[in-house]
Amino acid sequence: METTLNSSQKNLHALYNPGHIVIVGFSRDESKEPAIFLRELLNQGYKGKISLLGRERGQFQGCEMYDSAAALPEGIDLAFNMVAAGKTLDILPQVAARGVPAAVIFTSGFAEMDPSGADLQRKLVEACNANGMRVVGPNCPGYFYLPNGINLTGIPDIPQGPIGLISQSGNVGITLWDQAKTIDIGFSAFVGVGNQADIPIHDHIEYLGQDDNTKVIALYLEGLPDGHGPRFVSVCRDVSRRKPIVALKGGRTVGGMRAAQSHTAAMSSASKVYSALFKDCGVIEVAHLEHLLPIAEVLYRCPPMKGRRVAIVGSGGGHSTVSTDEVELAGLTVPEFNSELQAEYGKRLPSYAPKRNPVDMTGGFTKDPTRFAQMTELVLAHDPNFDGFINYGLYGFYRNGKPPADAVHTYESAGPVIGHVQARSGLPVIFYTPYAYRRDPAYSALRNAGIPCYPNIHLAALGLAALYERNQLLTKAADTDAKVDGPAETSANPALHGTGITEATAVAYLSGFGIRFPKLELCQTGDEAAVAAKRIGFPVVLKAVLPGVMHKSDVGGVAVGLSSSAAVSEAATTMTGHVTAALGAGRQDGFLVSEDLGKRRELFVGVRKDSLMGAIGLVGFGGVYAEAVNDTAICLLPATPARVAACLERLQSKSMWTEFRGEPAVAPAKIAALLNALDRALAADRLTAIECNPVMIVGGDLIAVDAAIETTEVA
Amino acid sequence: METTLNSSQKNLHALYNPGHIVIVGFSRDESKEPAIFLRELLNQGYKGKISLLGRERGQFQGCEMYDSAAALPEGIDLAFNMVAAGKTLDILPQVAARGVPAAVIFTSGFAEMDPSGADLQRKLVEACNANGMRVVGPNCPGYFYLPNGINLTGIPDIPQGPIGLISQSGNVGITLWDQAKTIDIGFSAFVGVGNQADIPIHDHIEYLGQDDNTKVIALYLEGLPDGHGPRFVSVCRDVSRRKPIVALKGGRTVGGMRAAQSHTAAMSSASKVYSALFKDCGVIEVAHLEHLLPIAEVLYRCPPMKGRRVAIVGSGGGHSTVSTDEVELAGLTVPEFNSELQAEYGKRLPSYAPKRNPVDMTGGFTKDPTRFAQMTELVLAHDPNFDGFINYGLYGFYRNGKPPADAVHTYESAGPVIGHVQARSGLPVIFYTPYAYRRDPAYSALRNAGIPCYPNIHLAALGLAALYERNQLLTKAADTDAKVDGPAETSANPALHGTGITEATAVAYLSGFGIRFPKLELCQTGDEAAVAAKRIGFPVVLKAVLPGVMHKSDVGGVAVGLSSSAAVSEAATTMTGHVTAALGAGRQDGFLVSEDLGKRRELFVGVRKDSLMGAIGLVGFGGVYAEAVNDTAICLLPATPARVAACLERLQSKSMWTEFRGEPAVAPAKIAALLNALDRALAADRLTAIECNPVMIVGGDLIAVDAAIETTEVA
Repeated sequence: METTLNSSQKNLHALYNPGHIVIVGFSRDESKEPAIFLRELLNQGYKGKISLLGRERGQFQGCEMYDSAAALPEGIDLAFNMVAAGKTLDILPQVAARGVPAAVIFTSGFAEMDPSGADLQRKLVEACNANGMRVVGPNCPGYFYLPNGINLTGIPDIPQGPIGLISQSGNVGITLWDQAKTIDIGFSAFVGVGNQADIPIHDHIEYLGQDDNTKVIALYLEGLPDGHGPRFVSVCRDVSRRKPIVALKGGRTVGGMRAAQSHTAAMSSASKVYSALFKDCGVIEVAHLEHLLPIAEVLYRCPPMKGRRVAIVGSGGGHSTVSTDEVELAGLTVPEFNSELQAEYGKRLPSYAPKRNPVDMTGGFTKDPTRFAQMTELVLAHDPNFDGFINYGLYGFYRNGKPPADAVHTYESAGPVIGHVQARSGLPVIFYTPYAYRRDPAYSALRNAGIPCYPNIHLAALGLAALYERNQLLTKAADTDAKVDGPAETSANPALHGTGITEATAVAYLSGFGIRFPKLELCQTGDEAAVAAKRIGFPVVLKAVLPGVMHKSDVGGVAVGLSSSAAVSEAATTMTGHVTAALGAGRQDGFLVSEDLGKRRELFVGVRKDSLMGAIGLVGFGGVYAEAVNDTAICLLPATPARVAACLERLQSKSMWTEFRGEPAVAPAKIAALLNALDRALAADRLTAIECNPVMIVGGDLIAVDAAIETTEVA
Repeated sequence: METTLNSSQKNLHALYNPGHIVIVGFSRDESKEPAIFLRELLNQGYKGKISLLGRERGQFQGCEMYDSAAALPEGIDLAFNMVAAGKTLDILPQVAARGVPAAVIFTSGFAEMDPSGADLQRKLVEACNANGMRVVGPNCPGYFYLPNGINLTGIPDIPQGPIGLISQSGNVGITLWDQAKTIDIGFSAFVGVGNQADIPIHDHIEYLGQDDNTKVIALYLEGLPDGHGPRFVSVCRDVSRRKPIVALKGGRTVGGMRAAQSHTAAMSSASKVYSALFKDCGVIEVAHLEHLLPIAEVLYRCPPMKGRRVAIVGSGGGHSTVSTDEVELAGLTVPEFNSELQAEYGKRLPSYAPKRNPVDMTGGFTKDPTRFAQMTELVLAHDPNFDGFINYGLYGFYRNGKPPADAVHTYESAGPVIGHVQARSGLPVIFYTPYAYRRDPAYSALRNAGIPCYPNIHLAALGLAALYERNQLLTKAADTDAKVDGPAETSANPALHGTGITEATAVAYLSGFGIRFPKLELCQTGDEAAVAAKRIGFPVVLKAVLPGVMHKSDVGGVAVGLSSSAAVSEAATTMTGHVTAALGAGRQDGFLVSEDLGKRRELFVGVRKDSLMGAIGLVGFGGVYAEAVNDTAICLLPATPARVAACLERLQSKSMWTEFRGEPAVAPAKIAALLNALDRALAADRLTAIECNPVMIVGGDLIAVDAAIETTEVA
């Protein structure tokens, strides 16, 4: 593996595969964390060498103690720092100077606390890096890599398995290790990334992406360091093609962002940006913490689901209704079985048993729990157009789970039979039973056979939806144009800065980037406007030029459908009257006359600086009511037709942008070109945001009818 | 209690308080359901008399067996019918004739199966009713009323407590009884209502509303019988003021409705109608089955929450972020603590501990778990503007739950101290700990002190949101105008029926109900239209009259902003050309000329027949893009200003209908008047639907600019 590692990955290799660890800040006090961490490291069966750096010399539990960094032996791979924040800078760089390539800084009290902590953190990382050491944290709850017997979390009995967990919280980790025991799954690796002062989350994703002991990567992420979005996207695009990545974003609300800030100094871009970025690079996002592991579980145990059609086979009427609801609410479908299959069920089930999908065997499975497999196999044989299955019922504990005397199968012996349906067909099967999280051989047997068992139907439906999302990712063509680079080098144009950018200035500037506007002329008087209108061609729109006014139409500054020179002159006089009445004299700086494109579909298209991604694009429902309808979606930049198409698909108003009432569909490529032109315009002048609203759809073309530019003062 | 019961409630009193039960269809075979049900009835400690009706005479387990209905003794209160569907009609009416006022029909194979089953069900209910018997079911999974020792579900060990559960599914019941054990809660009553052939769900709600053993009512509901919506609303409006009602609607999707149909013959109105009706009558709706009991639990244990402000007090950084997200995603807020409170925390917590809300005590609670109470009391003392609390942490099991040697409190002794915070302040406290559903004294102690413990934060947030919803219900003024009656007696007007109702016909009909339209005239030729336009006043809109064509503008049949007679004539010629090109000759039947009201905010306002409610109102974003934007909400009829205001509040575009860009807010009373006028128009002519789109907002007035009427052929 080492041959393919880049230099940062070599430091990570030392982290995950150290032959020699030093605990920095060690003391013999067994009630204190350093000794507790050492005990759990030894309990985990770590086979490498351990050194202890503290105030004493001597031996402790077979490990050598040192009282100065200078005295440490050579060849140490990893330093685990437990020294208080204020003293870390005095010690850790010295340890680094001994040739230690990686450190984990467990200690808190850095950037997450206050500006002086941030300053300390910066100095510490610089000093360690200068000595060739890369650091995890600070403010990191520890890490483990169980295949090598490493556990530096201080917590015993963590179940081992295929999940690599990367988390910005220790407590979240502890919660998940506990939950994993319930579902017979476990972890290869855990790393608490803390403040990510040096090594960001995606470096760990890249490393675990190559780790054969890790089959699925789960993230609890509060935020990435500023500007790291593009690199995160590029790493996850690559890794997610090889193994599933599932994530919960912490800090999705205003309050949550504040909490995350105090907790891990996470620099929080809006959560909508993260969602867009996850979708773009194949990370499956979950909505709630308790879903993170079950979704990781299903992605690990089951094959992807190739379409949306779900067959539901079980026992019990209410649960059949609830199952169908949950599956369809999760975006999948439960189509009716064909008549051939319904007839087959008719031969085997009572007349009153529902058979249309769901099929409800109405009990009778305690004697033979493989009936779930038999009834599911019938779907495969007689209506083979389904993509996945839910089995449901009071499996395992109905009437206390005791098999009747004449049982042909126990729940334990039935598990492999049900698992065989999935293995043979290559289609996912998920089991719902309310008792699924009781620790019982009935469920271990199912799980060992590859069938996740969930204790609620909602989760089973989300599991199938995740498998469908996974398949979409694996089958979609690579969007090779979608390389996300940092913003281009830029030069400031002082003309555009300040608070009073008029529409005319914005239009002139943006036209230089190839953005199309209606024919328009800037005039000082109503008479000039009337003449300009004739040149442009009727009908025209007349607007007052009003520096710094957001909504011109609110003050009577817009007149549309003017069809003669006389109408233009008259409108100009009236308009100036209205504007003066509303804003006082001296605010108006002439008129803008432009082609009137009539009633068209109106898009909102904009770009905006973003701390995480550099810049992002926005596309949505435009026009006067855009803010009220509030239907926009984020598009990563550079925009590609595929990215824009995915973005339009997320809009509530999506049907408006396909063929609509006789008008053609809007070409994603045209929107992509507009977004990229706006992105260049944004970068070229270090602007904060550019919004074109409305952008009118005129046949196959996009014509921006209005544009607003937001700037911040250049420092 | 009996004095206040109406006649249907007297039959229900016999159901819930029988002194004498007969099991109909009994046999001695102990592996069969009748004997199993008898065994569990006896195990439950039922003290009344039990008779058994089957093929034999004699005694069984101390109960008298009878071989004919005629032989049954007098004074039986309840018959529990287990005879097969086909034979029930031969036996149960005879049992009724013995003066038995109530029956539960456990048997399936009626309306849920096929039309012949529906026919049998109708005959059976008629025959029983004729003999003075009211029936629960058929296709009912049984019932229990534990305060009287009645359990006719065949399932042992059901926990007793304050929840009255009404369910259209037995399996859902079984699942919930099991879940209740985990959260130290239980049931007073359960009734499986099955097909509701006779007694609908709301009769049980009304009965349990008066039952002192029932403190909260939980519903699993797939559908109400046709036309019963208004009665359900009226019962729940009354009961929900006295005790909380919480519901899961089964059959919320197309597939789910089909499944519910096969399962309980539920007549399914759209799930949006149920949601609107629940909101209107104070039923708290949950989204997922696994939330039903926990939300019932919080409504039972905690006081309502008077505002949206939540203080979060706990231990652990990641959980603090996730808690804040969940609370805000649930529609509540987590505002920052004032500086006085932050300073108080500063005296007691480490410098690196976040103190802004959430406050994170960063561990240290194992020695004294009452620290959660202490830190929460500080909020009450120093920033008393909060309405509810979440406590969170790895409470009870962190490092295996063993208290340290110097502990001042155990988890068990801390529970009452935390409970005291809620009791003293009257503000709800919910605890999140990942271990909450382990059966452990730590959590029983909290629950017994009134504090719900949830194993996920999502649920804790939903719990507080439910308490807030409960408070809103209890404090809002009774909307006395909102009595829902059945539709008025109607008379058909044949002129309006058929597929070719033109806009002109619709406008003429609706104007008769006081609905305002722009000034308009119907003309045969372009020349007539030009003259009419002058009478109306310019500018005008010209439309082609096109019977049966939905979207006139798609075929060039609409021209707006015509400002002279010449423009009208010219537009008429062009229009006829376009329409003929699009649809062929002979489709156009003249022109409609009307006032052009210009650009205005456009509402969608409509009414529609509904199997559950008689009729419902719809209000939403209107105009050409109404369907694409798809933002409408249901308003129950008769519409009242309060109902309309609540309905507007649910719209995505809600800000558009308040004061908006210089235009006044739309008065809910005006929309209510329009809806009620449309409702009268719908009823008067037995129409299916009337849609006014757009309804333009002109100053304070609503003017319908277009109207479409949907009819079905009169039989």
